[in-house]
Amino acid sequence: MKILEDAILQKGRILDNDIIKVDTIINHQVDVPLMVEIAKEIKKEFPCVDKVLTIVTSGLPYAFALAEQYGVNMVFAKKEKSKTVDLSSCYIEEIPSFTHGNVNQVTVDKKFLSKGEKILIADDFLASGAASLGLINICKQAGAEVVGVTALVEKSFQGGRKKIEELGIKVVSGACIKAFENNVPVFE
Amino acid sequence: MKILEDAILQKGRILDNDIIKVDTIINHQVDVPLMVEIAKEIKKEFPCVDKVLTIVTSGLPYAFALAEQYGVNMVFAKKEKSKTVDLSSCYIEEIPSFTHGNVNQVTVDKKFLSKGEKILIADDFLASGAASLGLINICKQAGAEVVGVTALVEKSFQGGRKKIEELGIKVVSGACIKAFENNVPVFE
Repeated sequence: MKILEDAILQKGRILDNDIIKVDTIINHQVDVPLMVEIAKEIKKEFPCVDKVLTIVTSGLPYAFALAEQYGVNMVFAKKEKSKTVDLSSCYIEEIPSFTHGNVNQVTVDKKFLSKGEKILIADDFLASGAASLGLINICKQAGAEVVGVTALVEKSFQGGRKKIEELGIKVVSGACIKAFENNVPVFE
Repeated sequence: MKILEDAILQKGRILDNDIIKVDTIINHQVDVPLMVEIAKEIKKEFPCVDKVLTIVTSGLPYAFALAEQYGVNMVFAKKEKSKTVDLSSCYIEEIPSFTHGNVNQVTVDKKFLSKGEKILIADDFLASGAASLGLINICKQAGAEVVGVTALVEKSFQGGRKKIEELGIKVVSGACIKAFENNVPVFE
């Protein structure tokens, strides 16, 4: 999507030909009008969605923008244990975090995913696919149908897309980076 | 706001006449169409806003909904230390968490708040006011102008509003709870 690729080129920064820093538009400051435009385009790829599922934290704005386009609710999987959460009523998955180098226990309350519901999984990044695969497993536990996975920024060379597509699930990203060359992203 | 009070009465739960659980509409599943309606109403109270500031995690959907109404960006203050964050470039505040019983170091990158910018602070809850007061201090460090504080759900008996209003800052909440009686919220 050209508007996002342009924003990444103008406002993003690549560290060590590896980490992409887009805190000006996605994961610290959020370019809300840009995200709304992207959500409108992504909706054309997944016409029928009952609910949008994401994971804390920086997937929330994009998931909200998408859910608003469909006029549906969104659900965010949680990482922290809260005083008010009863784990026995949750779907649980262990998801390794690329950014923080640890493993998170991720939970979704069972009452928020129903059998047969059409779920669109949304996140800010798609790299190894760990987070999306964890959310897919949670949907599977619920008997919900994952109609697709969408990310704002994909690093296709890290293999996430391939693993998800092998499950027969469609993947659409806002901007797909196939490589970094001298700290500049090269888009697919 | 009647639509939110009704949603809280129908879908919320009060635990021990103290904790209000609204995970069906606000902080696990998000009722996106409801939040958009609330944001439209709140905009009437604060006509001139350059940016919406919130804090991770469950303030993000509401802040996004508000920013979209204004056509401006949102910024979310962070709690976790990330590999890609340089603390020397951040405004920092210590904020005690009522829910988790600890103190968080909260950061906003200096480049996302400018002198004279009109900031609307938004969060899901307003109780003791600790989070909002921390964000107000961060804005003060930046020389930005806080035009108001808004929360979806306020527990007015916990004193947050009073402390913020004493600073000369307007507070508007979607639903203001003045007491719990037999595990039922009583609205102002």
